[in-house]
Amino acid sequence: MIGESTRLSRIIKNGKILILAMDQGLEHGPSDFNEKNIDPDYVFKIAEKGGFTGFAIQKGIAQKYAQNYAGKTPLILKLNGRTNINPREDVYSSPVASVKEAVKLGADAIGYTLYVGSPNEAIMFNEFGEIQAEAKEYGMPTIVWAYPRGHYVKNEKDPATIAYAARCALELGADIVKVNYPGTQKGFEKVVSAAQKCHVISSGGSKLSDKDFLKKAKEVMAAGAKGFAVGRNVWQRNDPLKITKELKQIIFGK
Amino acid sequence: MIGESTRLSRIIKNGKILILAMDQGLEHGPSDFNEKNIDPDYVFKIAEKGGFTGFAIQKGIAQKYAQNYAGKTPLILKLNGRTNINPREDVYSSPVASVKEAVKLGADAIGYTLYVGSPNEAIMFNEFGEIQAEAKEYGMPTIVWAYPRGHYVKNEKDPATIAYAARCALELGADIVKVNYPGTQKGFEKVVSAAQKCHVISSGGSKLSDKDFLKKAKEVMAAGAKGFAVGRNVWQRNDPLKITKELKQIIFGK
Amino acid sequence: MIGESTRLSRIIKNGKILILAMDQGLEHGPSDFNEKNIDPDYVFKIAEKGGFTGFAIQKGIAQKYAQNYAGKTPLILKLNGRTNINPREDVYSSPVASVKEAVKLGADAIGYTLYVGSPNEAIMFNEFGEIQAEAKEYGMPTIVWAYPRGHYVKNEKDPATIAYAARCALELGADIVKVNYPGTQKGFEKVVSAAQKCHVISSGGSKLSDKDFLKKAKEVMAAGAKGFAVGRNVWQRNDPLKITKELKQIIFGK
Amino acid sequence: MIGESTRLSRIIKNGKILILAMDQGLEHGPSDFNEKNIDPDYVFKIAEKGGFTGFAIQKGIAQKYAQNYAGKTPLILKLNGRTNINPREDVYSSPVASVKEAVKLGADAIGYTLYVGSPNEAIMFNEFGEIQAEAKEYGMPTIVWAYPRGHYVKNEKDPATIAYAARCALELGADIVKVNYPGTQKGFEKVVSAAQKCHVISSGGSKLSDKDFLKKAKEVMAAGAKGFAVGRNVWQRNDPLKITKELKQIIFGK
Amino acid sequence: MIGESTRLSRIIKNGKILILAMDQGLEHGPSDFNEKNIDPDYVFKIAEKGGFTGFAIQKGIAQKYAQNYAGKTPLILKLNGRTNINPREDVYSSPVASVKEAVKLGADAIGYTLYVGSPNEAIMFNEFGEIQAEAKEYGMPTIVWAYPRGHYVKNEKDPATIAYAARCALELGADIVKVNYPGTQKGFEKVVSAAQKCHVISSGGSKLSDKDFLKKAKEVMAAGAKGFAVGRNVWQRNDPLKITKELKQIIFGK
Repeated sequence: MIGESTRLSRIIKNGKILILAMDQGLEHGPSDFNEKNIDPDYVFKIAEKGGFTGFAIQKGIAQKYAQNYAGKTPLILKLNGRTNINPREDVYSSPVASVKEAVKLGADAIGYTLYVGSPNEAIMFNEFGEIQAEAKEYGMPTIVWAYPRGHYVKNEKDPATIAYAARCALELGADIVKVNYPGTQKGFEKVVSAAQKCHVISSGGSKLSDKDFLKKAKEVMAAGAKGFAVGRNVWQRNDPLKITKELKQIIFGK
Repeated sequence: MIGESTRLSRIIKNGKILILAMDQGLEHGPSDFNEKNIDPDYVFKIAEKGGFTGFAIQKGIAQKYAQNYAGKTPLILKLNGRTNINPREDVYSSPVASVKEAVKLGADAIGYTLYVGSPNEAIMFNEFGEIQAEAKEYGMPTIVWAYPRGHYVKNEKDPATIAYAARCALELGADIVKVNYPGTQKGFEKVVSAAQKCHVISSGGSKLSDKDFLKKAKEVMAAGAKGFAVGRNVWQRNDPLKITKELKQIIFGK
Repeated sequence: MIGESTRLSRIIKNGKILILAMDQGLEHGPSDFNEKNIDPDYVFKIAEKGGFTGFAIQKGIAQKYAQNYAGKTPLILKLNGRTNINPREDVYSSPVASVKEAVKLGADAIGYTLYVGSPNEAIMFNEFGEIQAEAKEYGMPTIVWAYPRGHYVKNEKDPATIAYAARCALELGADIVKVNYPGTQKGFEKVVSAAQKCHVISSGGSKLSDKDFLKKAKEVMAAGAKGFAVGRNVWQRNDPLKITKELKQIIFGK
Repeated sequence: MIGESTRLSRIIKNGKILILAMDQGLEHGPSDFNEKNIDPDYVFKIAEKGGFTGFAIQKGIAQKYAQNYAGKTPLILKLNGRTNINPREDVYSSPVASVKEAVKLGADAIGYTLYVGSPNEAIMFNEFGEIQAEAKEYGMPTIVWAYPRGHYVKNEKDPATIAYAARCALELGADIVKVNYPGTQKGFEKVVSAAQKCHVISSGGSKLSDKDFLKKAKEVMAAGAKGFAVGRNVWQRNDPLKITKELKQIIFGK
Repeated sequence: MIGESTRLSRIIKNGKILILAMDQGLEHGPSDFNEKNIDPDYVFKIAEKGGFTGFAIQKGIAQKYAQNYAGKTPLILKLNGRTNINPREDVYSSPVASVKEAVKLGADAIGYTLYVGSPNEAIMFNEFGEIQAEAKEYGMPTIVWAYPRGHYVKNEKDPATIAYAARCALELGADIVKVNYPGTQKGFEKVVSAAQKCHVISSGGSKLSDKDFLKKAKEVMAAGAKGFAVGRNVWQRNDPLKITKELKQIIFGK
């Protein structure tokens, strides 16, 4: 699979991963932003200067902004999305872009959000199955945002439940799985174990203090994860490059 | 993207936009009309004489009337639609025409109504995603009518909610987003900020007095919008060209 | 659009239309029939001898009976249908034949029933949109049976509501729209006005006395309609050709 | 339509039809079988030795057993099916095989079960419409098992209701319609009349005494039907060929 | 059908079958695993060393692990899947991989889980029908995991109900059907009889004592089944190869 290896080599550096995400405008709404970081250009520059190994965005952002950063941070095109207006009970994220569009935009991976356990799980399993198959045809790696969620998911933060979601990502063919941190290193070890050859990265989550965030980062790496996909914990800070540098020290050891 | 640039150059003049819309017969019913403006020819002529930079209509109107106005006002083909008979709770506007039909009719943009936050949001996100991708293949610009609406949308006029809808249009790849005016210039600035490189235009809304309408127009432009998509506030007036002239003075400064 | 003009010239004679319909076996059940008119051959002959400008039937009838009448009454193939067993609340008529089949059968138009305002309106708008686009590719005219119906339609006979349905037919691209008569000439004028360049014809409806039926016909024509699509008021009578002759006198003036 | 005529000539002999069906394992479950007739080979042999003019089965049976009987009883491939586990309220039978598979298996007709009046009627009308169109392309006759059923069907055995189902089969393009016997010859005459050029055959139904079954057969033929599609009344008997001989005497007069 | 025969000859040895399955990470979650058997490599080695005639896994496991075991245990690619988080009431397992992907991965059969009697039965019947047809085109055998389940299934362990599920697999075209053991040899004989030429294998089920498991195995084979598809009863044991050897003695007699 030379295509996938080539593309993954740009996202995984020395076996480690640090992705910047900026799809919160769609997933949470612009209330996540201030006057500076509401501008994609501002975040594109953080991705570049911070040396992130991937930048996860929707196609609208890629089409209107990426031209000026061609060849800098590897593009990870999110292929599905939703707003947070509808309830979580039967949460579903529908496809809004295709693998072919990702190829055309020069992406090095596609991102897909999978709500494991949702009453709409079957639709997402099916859609991801087809996306993953098409991605394979193009040598395009797949990254799954695997979140247990929906009416029948009792505790989204339960390590066993997150581990289940991570295992789904492995069995359905993801190359990398992004999960929420379950709160303890021991819990996260379960998740990493369940995912086996599927590389595990942790979400950054909502903004934490520097201390708490870096503590979390150390636990994540100690649990065997390959790194992080961060957003608000970087671009919501006054000095995003400072925290990035500290995070990279923990992830890459330099 | 020479195709999109070429087409957009016909709709955006000196950075500004003034679109006339006549899809109210479908969206609201013929009760919006009087004996004159119920005739599409009457409104086609307003579009031409008023110097509008775009005329947004359904395919039935385009196929039966546009021939006589070929090369005048740029055609914006609406690709979805609904009547207002069904409730807003789970509002959905289904595709009734295709990008290919827009190309065949010589359109310079397609229009798509996106009800952000509706329980049927996922279907519309998905359908718009495919339409936008196909439009890109044809060099066809996309204009999104972005309205927060449905059971879980508490206040359709809330600036933050409208800003969320505008941000969706940006992230999903629209070139221009039409939104409802949230009532204040300050509120509209939020919307314009959220949309970033996606051009924002305001709807005209239901008929206002000349004074109120022009006041609104000034606020819209002062907030940083690119212009308007109007309908009833123009063709429901006794002298539609007079108000058009005044509106153009505000938008284009001449 | 030479194809559409050619085909329409067979259905519209001197600007007027008189269609015979025999899809009641599907739409209402065989209880509409007696021993004679249950036989399609009987009705085919009425269509021919009565000089109708179109004969609207389902594909099963066309395939099994039309061969003997090739080149006589222009065929209008109904593309969707339903029985009247399910409730009207969320009424929906699904496609049962295709434009291509209509072309193959030598049809001069396709017929599509559109239940405006039904909770399933979106599905029908979408399906008709695709059918109309394909019909355009073949130069095939489209006739919409436009009926306001469903849970949220308060009064199916309200002139404004029927006018709304007729306007939908125009905006969605129908060439001819068949509507129910709202009871008064004045009300029907509203409908004709809303449809503009889309030719309006009235349904015959359930069987009336000769006097009432011909009175209705005069009002329909005086309101500006182009004619009728009749069924039971013709083939349920003892002498269908007599009433046809009287009807033609009113419609065509000869 | 030489293809259809050729294939129908194998199923309709001297204007009469006698089909053996063995899809009860799917439709009712193996409880219909005893140790002998649970084996498809046993029933294939009855079909052949009994001189049936068609054998209606699902593709799994055809693929695994028909090879040994190639060129004997004409194959009628059932294209849809369901178990009887789910309730009749919203009964639906989904496609499980295609027209192309029927062609490949050397079938002389396809069989489709249509639950007229079910809340899922629209789906089945649509699916049968497409199947019938594809069948036409291959010169493949269509046989509809037309059963009024579902929440809004008050009496499945009412002659007028069965006649309605038979009329649907005619209008939707079936060549042969199989219906349940409504209990009286007079009632069945209504059904035959409603179906017109669509050939009507009666189901055998659940097992009856010899006397009752043959009485029913005589009434069916006297009512103008073309024959029968039987199953349990043949292969559940100790001597299936004896009853077959008697039945053939009634149907074919020899 | 040389393709199917060739592939089946690798899975059926001397008329008998012993499949190892490892899709429990998806179907039940990683709680089924311990530190050793959570690693697919560990289970791949059991499949190889144990001389299993097939290894049933999801595509994610095949793509990331099978390369090292190419040409060893025949691959059975599961084409659908679900987690056990959603309720069984309306259980549905959606497609996550395709027949074409199975071919590309060098599989010798595809596996499909069919929940007979579920309110979603119709969707699965339809999807399996299409999968089976495509499999036939590639000469790819089909194995159905046939489980009666859902709101209207009163007793999943009832022999008659399991027999019904097995009969469905036969009629829909499966080559091999895997069912749950109904508890008695006599009950299982019913199942085997209902499936006729479709080869029946028993699931291993949740972990039993050696004695109970081997007793069950003997009953299964005595009932006429062709073998087993096992998982937890093998790889959850301390010495999986020991129980495998004992099981093979019962199935293959050596």
